[in-house]
Amino acid sequence: MAPPPVRIEDPADPRITGFVSIKERDLTGRQGRFIAEGTVVLRMLAAAHRAGRGIAAEAILLLENRIAGLADVLAKFPADIPVFVADERVFDAIAGFNMHRGVLALGRRDQMPGRDALIAALPASSLVLAACGISNHDNMGSLFRNAAAFGVDAVLMDASSCDPMYRKAIRVSVGSVLTLPFAREGTAAELIEQLQAAGFALWGLSPRGEMDITAIPPAPRTALLVGTEGEGLPETILSAIRTARIRQRPGLDSLNVAMAAGIALHQVAMINKRI
Amino acid sequence: MAPPPVRIEDPADPRITGFVSIKERDLTGRQGRFIAEGTVVLRMLAAAHRAGRGIAAEAILLLENRIAGLADVLAKFPADIPVFVADERVFDAIAGFNMHRGVLALGRRDQMPGRDALIAALPASSLVLAACGISNHDNMGSLFRNAAAFGVDAVLMDASSCDPMYRKAIRVSVGSVLTLPFAREGTAAELIEQLQAAGFALWGLSPRGEMDITAIPPAPRTALLVGTEGEGLPETILSAIRTARIRQRPGLDSLNVAMAAGIALHQVAMINKRI
Repeated sequence: MAPPPVRIEDPADPRITGFVSIKERDLTGRQGRFIAEGTVVLRMLAAAHRAGRGIAAEAILLLENRIAGLADVLAKFPADIPVFVADERVFDAIAGFNMHRGVLALGRRDQMPGRDALIAALPASSLVLAACGISNHDNMGSLFRNAAAFGVDAVLMDASSCDPMYRKAIRVSVGSVLTLPFAREGTAAELIEQLQAAGFALWGLSPRGEMDITAIPPAPRTALLVGTEGEGLPETILSAIRTARIRQRPGLDSLNVAMAAGIALHQVAMINKRI
Repeated sequence: MAPPPVRIEDPADPRITGFVSIKERDLTGRQGRFIAEGTVVLRMLAAAHRAGRGIAAEAILLLENRIAGLADVLAKFPADIPVFVADERVFDAIAGFNMHRGVLALGRRDQMPGRDALIAALPASSLVLAACGISNHDNMGSLFRNAAAFGVDAVLMDASSCDPMYRKAIRVSVGSVLTLPFAREGTAAELIEQLQAAGFALWGLSPRGEMDITAIPPAPRTALLVGTEGEGLPETILSAIRTARIRQRPGLDSLNVAMAAGIALHQVAMINKRI
């Protein structure tokens, strides 16, 4: 039985320091700490915590009127994770903004396996989403949400991509960032080389792709590579790998990168009977 | 040859009243006026203006350092559309925010054909995206972007859906809202009845759908219906129409509504050889 929540009356209470001025601190990074927002993400955090693979909850902060509706989610956390509660005035003063829906958790991401280790641990039959130069946290979150929906085993990004542990990316991913293995390091060229060496059939997604995504042949190991918003994958990469396109009306602007990845992952997952 | 841009030195200049405090006015509506942001949307506005089907540009406001790069887009507007230019301080003081990327246009949407007229004018072979209860402007914009990519002839929404002419929805749609015919009126039940009476094979998208989207048979007229974020289509609607699902990993949260619509439209457009 979990202990009752601890009421916070003073926004400067040292016990809730981790929740102070969340919005500003988003921009400066938080040394392995992250913020989970909303009920759905809180549920995913509980699952990730229980799984014990490097994601841990440290504290939960709730608006007082949210407590009753969250009993089942709170019960999924170990009893030693403190749960704080505050009224709206104090809550907003702590967080520094009012878009939190009254549910925040502070979490920690421990040192995780790097790209080498992640690739080495992938099963003989696997699906990887590779991404380079993703700079928008909405798109990053969406990529993870889609990857989870279509059974991706790992998301591998180059170092120029933005951090999926950023609050908004976690929220848009509906918490998939907390449960899906990922690595973000090195260059796109290194990533490609490594995936090919590991026996992956690698497909770059591009409006100028040589083949329709529905024609991608099944393969035990398939990796889909998506590129930056706007520009798409650079020519140097497109010319070094096989490429696929999504059939669409000709026009000025192609699909959003997360949308394109979702459509392609759906196809590739069907082709490989993963869904 | 277009006249040179008119420099604005005073944020209170009456010539640029339409651009003042854009962000606050988003919330109150603007009597048929709308704001187009960014180069891509400006280009779409020029196309919509030239097409002369109810969308008209009224004025353009640019940050001084954007003028040079926009010559080709500006040339696509008639010479009688005034182009104003301001430095960053004045521009931000006018608009009331600084996320505009230095490219704003004020447009007007005249009285457009209602749903009856739109449906009556659809070709014998057509694809419709129907939506009910869409409350998020990002999702609304995404739905239009996808609809345009996959050759949808009209987007039909119930009155409870949010306004696609809202600034952010237009931006996320990369301007498709300005070129794709749409209507937003009445109830979902009325919309369904009307589409069925017009001979549309109507498919409701739902995680509990009876059939996989890849098994939807071709039909001269197909309409895809998507529901609210979170809840999805209500049971009363799902039980009255045929339903389709997107194969995915079982999990807590299904795909985002715009993502689901994109994946399903891609399939339905392929099935009906529209792309």
